[in-house]
Amino acid sequence: MQKLPIRIKEHLREIPFFVGRDLWAALAAYLQTDFPAHSLFVIADSTVAALYGEAAAGALRPHGGFRDILTFPAGEQYKSRARKEQLEDLLLLGKAGRDSVIVALGGGVTGDLAGYLAATLHRGVPLVHLPTSLMAQVDSSIGGKVGVNHPAGKNLIGAFYQPRAVFCDTAFLKTLPEEEFFNGMAEVIKYAVILDDELWRRLDSESAPILRREPGLLEQIVLRCASLKIKVVEADEKESGYRSILNFGHTAGHAIEHLSEYRIKHGFAVAEGMRIAARLSHQLLGYPRERVEDLDKLLELYGLKGVGREQFSAEEIWNCICSDKKARRQAPRFTLLRSPHHPELFYPVEKQELSHALAAS
Amino acid sequence: MQKLPIRIKEHLREIPFFVGRDLWAALAAYLQTDFPAHSLFVIADSTVAALYGEAAAGALRPHGGFRDILTFPAGEQYKSRARKEQLEDLLLLGKAGRDSVIVALGGGVTGDLAGYLAATLHRGVPLVHLPTSLMAQVDSSIGGKVGVNHPAGKNLIGAFYQPRAVFCDTAFLKTLPEEEFFNGMAEVIKYAVILDDELWRRLDSESAPILRREPGLLEQIVLRCASLKIKVVEADEKESGYRSILNFGHTAGHAIEHLSEYRIKHGFAVAEGMRIAARLSHQLLGYPRERVEDLDKLLELYGLKGVGREQFSAEEIWNCICSDKKARRQAPRFTLLRSPHHPELFYPVEKQELSHALAAS
Repeated sequence: MQKLPIRIKEHLREIPFFVGRDLWAALAAYLQTDFPAHSLFVIADSTVAALYGEAAAGALRPHGGFRDILTFPAGEQYKSRARKEQLEDLLLLGKAGRDSVIVALGGGVTGDLAGYLAATLHRGVPLVHLPTSLMAQVDSSIGGKVGVNHPAGKNLIGAFYQPRAVFCDTAFLKTLPEEEFFNGMAEVIKYAVILDDELWRRLDSESAPILRREPGLLEQIVLRCASLKIKVVEADEKESGYRSILNFGHTAGHAIEHLSEYRIKHGFAVAEGMRIAARLSHQLLGYPRERVEDLDKLLELYGLKGVGREQFSAEEIWNCICSDKKARRQAPRFTLLRSPHHPELFYPVEKQELSHALAAS
Repeated sequence: MQKLPIRIKEHLREIPFFVGRDLWAALAAYLQTDFPAHSLFVIADSTVAALYGEAAAGALRPHGGFRDILTFPAGEQYKSRARKEQLEDLLLLGKAGRDSVIVALGGGVTGDLAGYLAATLHRGVPLVHLPTSLMAQVDSSIGGKVGVNHPAGKNLIGAFYQPRAVFCDTAFLKTLPEEEFFNGMAEVIKYAVILDDELWRRLDSESAPILRREPGLLEQIVLRCASLKIKVVEADEKESGYRSILNFGHTAGHAIEHLSEYRIKHGFAVAEGMRIAARLSHQLLGYPRERVEDLDKLLELYGLKGVGREQFSAEEIWNCICSDKKARRQAPRFTLLRSPHHPELFYPVEKQELSHALAAS
């Protein structure tokens, strides 16, 4: 037997993440410079297309390659293999070649679906994210996770596929329904809890202008959260270690989301998951009780309470966590906090410990 | 507007490509060492499973994680999104988690389909190729191209996804149907034409023992071709430039394959495509006429003639090339040869030049 080594070099890629207001002109200039001869296809759900389709077409039409805005019905249930196929068919019918750019205009569902589409069309075509929801701006548009759901669970089919650029336009946030704004705030609060005391203080002391969505303030918050996520992702793109810090609140959160059949939105489920993770952190690792209580108050301040987690028993939540893809073969692992600046990644949690935390939350 | 750069570092990956005979024990040892706690799923078509399923199960069963051999009907028409979904469903039903290894046991169709499956299950799980056909051993198992066909064309949906290892067992070649052996020889001949005069001489002078499939000789040829492809892929994984040298014969070849609705096998179509590309090289770039004639003889020696290309007009072939994903917006580009050691990548060819070459071949 002989062995030939195949050495695949990959270069450092730098992805520009732009944050600001009214970035249509900047987007058009970027596409004109970096993809002058490409064709352009925008993908958006019906809600976002109704709000911003005209603005997008107006900005992109001067680029000779602008082809179409492809839409699909809004909703997590459309983040499916079937919907991906339909959009693939439309793109190929529209002669989308290797020289096509996919512009994902929308929230997390659109970014994940259009991103996965771009990742696999002709084995990958350039992708540009235009995240429109707070959740997408501070979380899902950064890090390259794309994919669709499967009846057996969320995000089970997908890829790691980095966009060429992200245009994070905080002007989109003004049309966000309140529930969707709160949904994104759960991730903002997560960054404060796991990584940024200063952010926590601001979320606490400036809640009134934040809740009024004061544009300058939102821009600062998005910029701060995006910077934090970028740092984590740069350190660990494929989630083999440190990136798991971002899973704080997500282990129980995903279970609650799944058990509710996605009636409980991701951010609201993660808020519950953070309450549980904070209590586990306190019980098992001595994380300060005041912090747990302060977190409860902060979540409440941003509309993140009373999601109806009580309808699921500790047994149901435990079983759902154990069947999750992150559970591997041993006891499920949680991202917990030993102290405000000392995370414990992959901490094994036993059933009675979880029940205890659930009873206390 | 502020700009945050996201820097994604990717490391050099080294993929071991093992060439030899009767590698089951080596495969088992590799999986035991590198993936001791993973679950293992083998994917094979029904033909290969009937021939080698028992050997695979026998070799892998001692690994505690061996789960199943999942099969699908043999044939290019099963390299489809629908088949991928069915296999995904079976894998997830079988509790394939992130800690699963996909072993692709088969020819090019299996490698492409199972590879794409592995690329997107849980956003990517480890993949090990066991190529069983000559085509897969010298070509498709190297380079990370995976994917499925679409009604609009071949390999339109997929990814670049590198396996963790390739076990290239030339013992599989003894059960290969003659047509399939000839099919692979087309790619072997391609390497000789574009990169290796010495290989060309051996194919010419040692055709009798090669056609008898003398094991030691086949092992040397596979090793040689694999080394050549590895060098090209290392230089250019994503086919942005030099890798296109491997497309010699493939521009017209793909068109013929597509027009025949895949009744003409890939290698046979590429053989036709090489005849055409050699003639274009002669007409447009002065590639020696003796070489063109020698290539005709070599292809004939290895059963690669009379595939029925005449049933398609120059017009049909031209139109099909122009609608191909490689055509971009301008005149279609061919990989041609100026001299035996001087390729011309992306050489634009006009319709009348192609017609002329077709008339001469």
